Amino acid sequence: MIVAGVMSGTSADGINVALVRIQGRGFRSRLELLAHYEFPYPIEVRRAVLRAMNAKSVSVADLSRLNFTLGELYAKSVQAAQRRAKLECELAGCHGQTLYHQSTPSNYLGRPIACTWQTGEAALIAAKLGVPVVSDFRPADMAVGGTGAPLVPFLDYVAFRHRRFGRIVQNIGGIGNLTAIPPRATPDEVFAFDTGPGNMVIDAVAERLFDRPYDRNGRLAAKGEPIESVLRQLLRRAFFKQPPPKTAGREQFGEAFVQELLRLCRRADAHDVMATATALTAQSIGLAVRKFVLPTDEANVPAGSRAPSRYREFVVSGGGTRNGTLMRMIREELAPLKMRVLTTDDFGLPSAAKEAVAFALLAYQTWRRLPSSIPSATGAQHPAILGKVSYA
Amino acid sequence: MIVAGVMSGTSADGINVALVRIQGRGFRSRLELLAHYEFPYPIEVRRAVLRAMNAKSVSVADLSRLNFTLGELYAKSVQAAQRRAKLECELAGCHGQTLYHQSTPSNYLGRPIACTWQTGEAALIAAKLGVPVVSDFRPADMAVGGTGAPLVPFLDYVAFRHRRFGRIVQNIGGIGNLTAIPPRATPDEVFAFDTGPGNMVIDAVAERLFDRPYDRNGRLAAKGEPIESVLRQLLRRAFFKQPPPKTAGREQFGEAFVQELLRLCRRADAHDVMATATALTAQSIGLAVRKFVLPTDEANVPAGSRAPSRYREFVVSGGGTRNGTLMRMIREELAPLKMRVLTTDDFGLPSAAKEAVAFALLAYQTWRRLPSSIPSATGAQHPAILGKVSYA
Repeated sequence: MIVAGVMSGTSADGINVALVRIQGRGFRSRLELLAHYEFPYPIEVRRAVLRAMNAKSVSVADLSRLNFTLGELYAKSVQAAQRRAKLECELAGCHGQTLYHQSTPSNYLGRPIACTWQTGEAALIAAKLGVPVVSDFRPADMAVGGTGAPLVPFLDYVAFRHRRFGRIVQNIGGIGNLTAIPPRATPDEVFAFDTGPGNMVIDAVAERLFDRPYDRNGRLAAKGEPIESVLRQLLRRAFFKQPPPKTAGREQFGEAFVQELLRLCRRADAHDVMATATALTAQSIGLAVRKFVLPTDEANVPAGSRAPSRYREFVVSGGGTRNGTLMRMIREELAPLKMRVLTTDDFGLPSAAKEAVAFALLAYQTWRRLPSSIPSATGAQHPAILGKVSYA
Repeated sequence: MIVAGVMSGTSADGINVALVRIQGRGFRSRLELLAHYEFPYPIEVRRAVLRAMNAKSVSVADLSRLNFTLGELYAKSVQAAQRRAKLECELAGCHGQTLYHQSTPSNYLGRPIACTWQTGEAALIAAKLGVPVVSDFRPADMAVGGTGAPLVPFLDYVAFRHRRFGRIVQNIGGIGNLTAIPPRATPDEVFAFDTGPGNMVIDAVAERLFDRPYDRNGRLAAKGEPIESVLRQLLRRAFFKQPPPKTAGREQFGEAFVQELLRLCRRADAHDVMATATALTAQSIGLAVRKFVLPTDEANVPAGSRAPSRYREFVVSGGGTRNGTLMRMIREELAPLKMRVLTTDDFGLPSAAKEAVAFALLAYQTWRRLPSSIPSATGAQHPAILGKVSYA
C-alpha cells in the first residue's frame, strides 16, 4: 500500500510530504520511502499559523478558517508530491499543525484537563485526494492517560530495532529526544524521553551574537572552544537529573535559559559561546545516554559491571545532523561508550522526511485498526489506535 | 446494532443522548428509539460554550481545554444514559458543539474560505465508552461544495418517506426548516430549506414584553389577535420570496428584525404583538409550503392545475410543537391545503430526541462506509460519507 505522510512542525516552515510503500502489519510493518518533498507555507499562512499558536486572543472565525485553509494546502501538497513522483497514494496520514499542547492537567472550569490540538481539516484532504485520511493522532493517546507525545518511537522501533544489538535513535530538532531500543526489544521495552536542548539554544545564540538564524554546519562553533566550567554549571540543572519520562520545551530551554548561558559566558569570545551552546546539546545527550539508557542495559545492570554495552549504534536525525560541529562533538561524547554514530540517512531515511514517514506509518496501522502508540514513551495505560479516519 | 446519538444544540442547554437500534443500510435503514435523555450542561460549562461561540477574542488554550472538557461530558452522558436504560451501545455518533459555521465563502488570507467547527473531543468518548465514535459530520459535506447543513433530512427521508403520498417534515427550533419528501421519492427528489423564524422571534417578544424566556404553550399569544397588516408587511421581506436552497439565522431574524416588528406593532396590545409574532412563524411556514413545495408537486405542476396536492401529511418537530397556539395556527394555515398536521411524536420519535437520533443514524451509515448527506438539501456536488471515525 502506498501511503502519504504529511507533517508540518512547530517551526511552521511548511509541509513535508513523504510517499511510503508499507507492507505487513503492526511492528512487523516494512517501509520503503519512495519520495519526499518539502513545500514552504505561503508567507501569509505561516504568519497566521505563528499568530495562532498558543495565542492568548484570537477569533473563533479565523481559527475555523485557518483549519480549512490548512486542509486545502495539505491536500494540494500531497497532489503536488504525487505529480512529481508519478505515484498515487491509497491512504494519507496528516499530523496537522499543533496550535496547543498541554500534557500536564491544569484546572479548567474546576476540572483537571490536559489537552492537545492539531489543526488542518482532514475532510478536505480526503475529498480532494479521493482516499481515506487519518488525522488528529495525539488525543487518543491522551485519552488513555498518555502525554500524546512522542509518537515517532513507533517508527523508531519498526525501522531500527535489531536482533543482536541495541540502538539509540536520537532526534535533534529544537529539543533533543531519544528512543532507546534494546536488542530483541519487545515494544514495551522501548523507552523515549527528551534529552534537553537540540538546536533551540544554538539557534538563539547564533541569533544574539551573530545575527544569524542558525550556525550553518556549525562553522561558528568550530572556531571556538567550549567553556567547560559553564557546561558543568548548566548540566547541573534539575532537568538533566530528572529520570525519564520527561519532556522539555521553551519553558526549560527558551529565552530565560539563553540569558543565563550568556550571563555565565559574559567575558568569553563569541565563538567560544557558540561552541559552548553546541557542546551543551552534545554533552546533555551523552549524559542522558550514560545516566538513563546504559544503566537499564542488561549487560550493565549488575552493580559495577564493566561489560561493554549492548547498545552499539546511535542513529541521529533532525536538523541537528546538518551541524557538522555538533555531530563531531556527539561522536567524541559517545566514543568512550563504543557506540557508532550514524544518521537515519544511512538507513535510507532522510532526516527531513522522518516525521512525515512516521505519520504515514501510524495512519497505516490505524487503517488496519491496529494500535501504534508506545506506552513506555508516552506514559499511557495501554496502546491506542491513534487518529480519526475521514473517508473520501 | 445499538447506536448512541449525541447532540448539543446552539442554545447550549445541554446534551441529548438517544439510544437507537438500527438495522439495514443506507436509505433502507430501520430505526427504533430505545431511550432518550437530556443532560443539562453544568452552568460554568454552558457559560464557557456561549462565550466561545463566534467569539471575537478567545485563547487557544481555553478552546483546546473546552474541546477535551466537552468530550468528557459527552462520554459521561452516554454512560449515564446506558446505565439508566440498562443498554450498551456498540457505536456512537456525536455532533459536537458548534462554535462557528460559515457556509458562504469569505476572503481569508486571499482565499475564498467557507468553514464549520464542531468541538468535543471524540477520542475521549471512544476511549471511555470502549466503542468507535463518529464525530465532526459537517466538514465532509462542505468539502464537496455543500453548506454542511441541514443534515437531518437524511433521517427525515429514512423515517418519513411514504409510497403513496408526500410528507413535509417541519422542524421548529430557533429557526424553522422543512424537508419535503414527495411520494415514492428518490433521495435526490428530497429537498429542504429554512422557512423563516421558528421560536426565535416569539421568544424575543416574550422576553421583551413579558420578561419571560418563552411563551409557555402559547398562552400569551392565545389571549391576543394577530395584526394582519403587520404580518403582510413582514412577509414581504426578501427572505420569504427567495427560492430555496436558503438558510436563515440571527442575521435575518435576530435583534434588528424584532425591533422592526415591535416598531410596526407599536400601539398594539402586548398580547396582540405576541399573537403576531406567533402567526408570523405559522404564516411563513404556510407561505413556504404554497410557494416552494406545492408547485413542485407533479399533481400541481400543470399551470392552473386544481388537483389536490399529493402532500397529505405535515409532520412537526422541535420546541415549537410545545406551543399550542403556534400549532393551532399552523393547522389553520394548512387546512385549506388538505394537509394533516402531526408531530414526530405521533411516529414514536419525540421532538427533543430527533436530532440525537439523526446523528446516531448518520454515524451508523459512516460506520458502514455509506454516504448520508442529501445534496439537494446542502447543495453539495454529490453525497459524502460524513464524519471521522475514532476507534476505542
